[in-house]
Amino acid sequence: MSIEVIDSELTEQRLNQLTQALGSGMFVHVRNMLHDMAASDVALILESSPPKTRQVLWQLIDQEQAGEILEELGEELKDSLISGMTPEKVAQATSGMDTDDLAYILRSLPDAVYKKVLQSMSSQDRHRVEQALSYPEDTAGSIMNTDTVTLRPDVNIDVVLRYLRQRGNLPDTTDTLYVVDKNDHVLGGVRLADLLTCNPSETIRSIMDPELESIPVDMPDNEVAQLFERHDWISAPVVDEQQKLLGRITIDDVVDVIREDAEHSMMGMAGMDDDEDTFGPVMKSTFRRSLWLTINLFAALLAASVSNMFEGTLEQFATIAILMTIVPSMGGVAGNQTLALVIRGIALGHIGQSNSRWLIGKELAIGFLNGIMWSVLVFFAVWLWKDDMALGGLIGGAMLINMTVAGLAGASIPLLLKKLNIDPALAGGMVLTTVTDVIGLFAFLGLATIFLM
Amino acid sequence: MSIEVIDSELTEQRLNQLTQALGSGMFVHVRNMLHDMAASDVALILESSPPKTRQVLWQLIDQEQAGEILEELGEELKDSLISGMTPEKVAQATSGMDTDDLAYILRSLPDAVYKKVLQSMSSQDRHRVEQALSYPEDTAGSIMNTDTVTLRPDVNIDVVLRYLRQRGNLPDTTDTLYVVDKNDHVLGGVRLADLLTCNPSETIRSIMDPELESIPVDMPDNEVAQLFERHDWISAPVVDEQQKLLGRITIDDVVDVIREDAEHSMMGMAGMDDDEDTFGPVMKSTFRRSLWLTINLFAALLAASVSNMFEGTLEQFATIAILMTIVPSMGGVAGNQTLALVIRGIALGHIGQSNSRWLIGKELAIGFLNGIMWSVLVFFAVWLWKDDMALGGLIGGAMLINMTVAGLAGASIPLLLKKLNIDPALAGGMVLTTVTDVIGLFAFLGLATIFLM
Repeated sequence: MSIEVIDSELTEQRLNQLTQALGSGMFVHVRNMLHDMAASDVALILESSPPKTRQVLWQLIDQEQAGEILEELGEELKDSLISGMTPEKVAQATSGMDTDDLAYILRSLPDAVYKKVLQSMSSQDRHRVEQALSYPEDTAGSIMNTDTVTLRPDVNIDVVLRYLRQRGNLPDTTDTLYVVDKNDHVLGGVRLADLLTCNPSETIRSIMDPELESIPVDMPDNEVAQLFERHDWISAPVVDEQQKLLGRITIDDVVDVIREDAEHSMMGMAGMDDDEDTFGPVMKSTFRRSLWLTINLFAALLAASVSNMFEGTLEQFATIAILMTIVPSMGGVAGNQTLALVIRGIALGHIGQSNSRWLIGKELAIGFLNGIMWSVLVFFAVWLWKDDMALGGLIGGAMLINMTVAGLAGASIPLLLKKLNIDPALAGGMVLTTVTDVIGLFAFLGLATIFLM
Repeated sequence: MSIEVIDSELTEQRLNQLTQALGSGMFVHVRNMLHDMAASDVALILESSPPKTRQVLWQLIDQEQAGEILEELGEELKDSLISGMTPEKVAQATSGMDTDDLAYILRSLPDAVYKKVLQSMSSQDRHRVEQALSYPEDTAGSIMNTDTVTLRPDVNIDVVLRYLRQRGNLPDTTDTLYVVDKNDHVLGGVRLADLLTCNPSETIRSIMDPELESIPVDMPDNEVAQLFERHDWISAPVVDEQQKLLGRITIDDVVDVIREDAEHSMMGMAGMDDDEDTFGPVMKSTFRRSLWLTINLFAALLAASVSNMFEGTLEQFATIAILMTIVPSMGGVAGNQTLALVIRGIALGHIGQSNSRWLIGKELAIGFLNGIMWSVLVFFAVWLWKDDMALGGLIGGAMLINMTVAGLAGASIPLLLKKLNIDPALAGGMVLTTVTDVIGLFAFLGLATIFLM
């Protein structure tokens, strides 16, 4: 009996084989290949295929696997596949899903389909799902499962062992059973490892961890993720305001939150929606991206209108026009460095009331030091290039002003946006670049007008 | 017995209390507060404090916790604290650490300290660590632990249960015991949950999962992370080329890899080192950031030298100078959207040989469509603003060219960099912006020179 060692080239190979088989119309062969794969691998293949190929592949998959495959897909692709299914098919495909994943899918369905899917479910499933849907998105409640196994504190381990053998299985990713009193209040947790290694005649109370931390159901999911990361948890109990056990959160859902938040920051900073599907249709992508470009057009026109104020100077000195992009460009890069640092700090929970002033001061200092360094460099560079010392001085002075402002703005803009409940990862970059462009142009063209005209 | 429910404001409050207590010199109080906290909370407090406060806090922590706290810190802060410790202290603090974390710390020590730390260790620990250090960084081997518990296939469950009770405990994050033959080849895995729920008279072979996948020791750690995410694993066995069991990787280390890779992409795109410490010293940060600014200065001078080629045109038409930043700016934003999408696709393993041409074609099409849309818009905007239809046409034409190039460059630059083994998250943004700036200026100033001069 040999064991499968994972080959990182495998997906690539499979994708090539599938593409070829599809190209030559060998649909039965493709169907067999897909049925032999794990759901997560089929999901990866779907994610990596252009829209037309996806439609064909989706028809050929093992219908039993449909739900599992949907669970693994990115949001945009998932929505587009579900929108092509009948409500009955959706209900059938989703019947074996974890509550939290099912609720996640139902949230994105149009109202009519949503109701039909709920109607096609068994009443028990419907109840489970309706409860999950009652928690707001992006909170502990929305990523929670309700399949907890609970124990009473005063039974012996061997009683628990008999009970578990009778039960026959445990929910996925169970590492800890929760100990509760008769009102479902959490008293502690017992790890499976402890059940296996402790003396069977001991009581649950004596081996449980009474310090087990519970998560309030309304905690934002990114804070839940921070706790899991910090404490290396596999699962944690979720409680209501009365500390009553409602369910549990498992590390696999937390990993999804971490990945989504990270993507959100990275894509957001580039002005992209993190739901965007890499191999999605062209027209949809074009429109999705236009919001950001519209905002940028206004920012660019604003910068141009600053230049417009100095038309006289620009008319007289073409050299000023040639050099005028350097100062905004350096300010933009320096400001973005600070911005990325502060956004990460906010995401990791490192930045709060008590240290934000210190941080702004630090970044201002770095901006000023950077400003001195780069203004000297650019002074010599321009002096040598244009053989004009005064011009070098002007651009150096403007650089110092803009780099200092960039440090200040890079640190304070995300903190300000956060206070206003605007996502800094999304809006920070555009606001910052507008500031550094406008200040950079003002400083350079202003100084030039004062000293040269 | 009541259970602690987590309060997300807690860290903020603690930080305020500590800062106040430190300010009024109540060191004993601070020491007591720190000793009462979990290592991960102390680490969070250290991360969130300015350098001077950190030094004081570090003196006051519970020395027993030092190793655990170090494990939780970011790289830059960890290095700076360790560099202030004697080798003996480092050896003492790190004695209880997981092998992989210890190896990670030792890698960053100066040679002299490193040797002394190794000498102060027990020979068993030293052997363990030297083996871990033999695996290259960022591979499965470097995040692997060697504390696996293995079983033989032909014993009964009750024999295993007796063995585990005698053993008394299991390594952290153990969810699966590995079944091996006499040559340590992995035959399968048995989940703790199965040991608890199956009939004790069954054999390990009958309940083990023979399909358990093993990870080759030289697999890059980001591919390991993708596998964990895709399959919702808690742990996985690591094997050598002969499929012999070497150790196991656990989800907590994988979460660190995911977080680090995500930070690396986000910070890298802004030209920042992902090791950079949010509250680190000013001078260090200033110098760390200058590489990126130096490269940007060259890029900005390159753009200026493009403008310089059209000095005659700029001399004659100040309006051209006023408008010349708009085209590069829009191209930069459009290109960066594509870049972020492609970098994420590469990171998720969605993009390979078979679909990259399709992707480039798609992004080129989006760039062209965007180009048409925005060139029409900017044509009307400039026509209205400057009352000059020809000028509007010129800038519109340049926009179409630059947006199309931006789509093509945004998709092909990261793929090309990846082929050259250069990290696209790090270099992609700068290369792209240089391309869109240069092409944007060339297109606009070039068209202006042809049609207006």
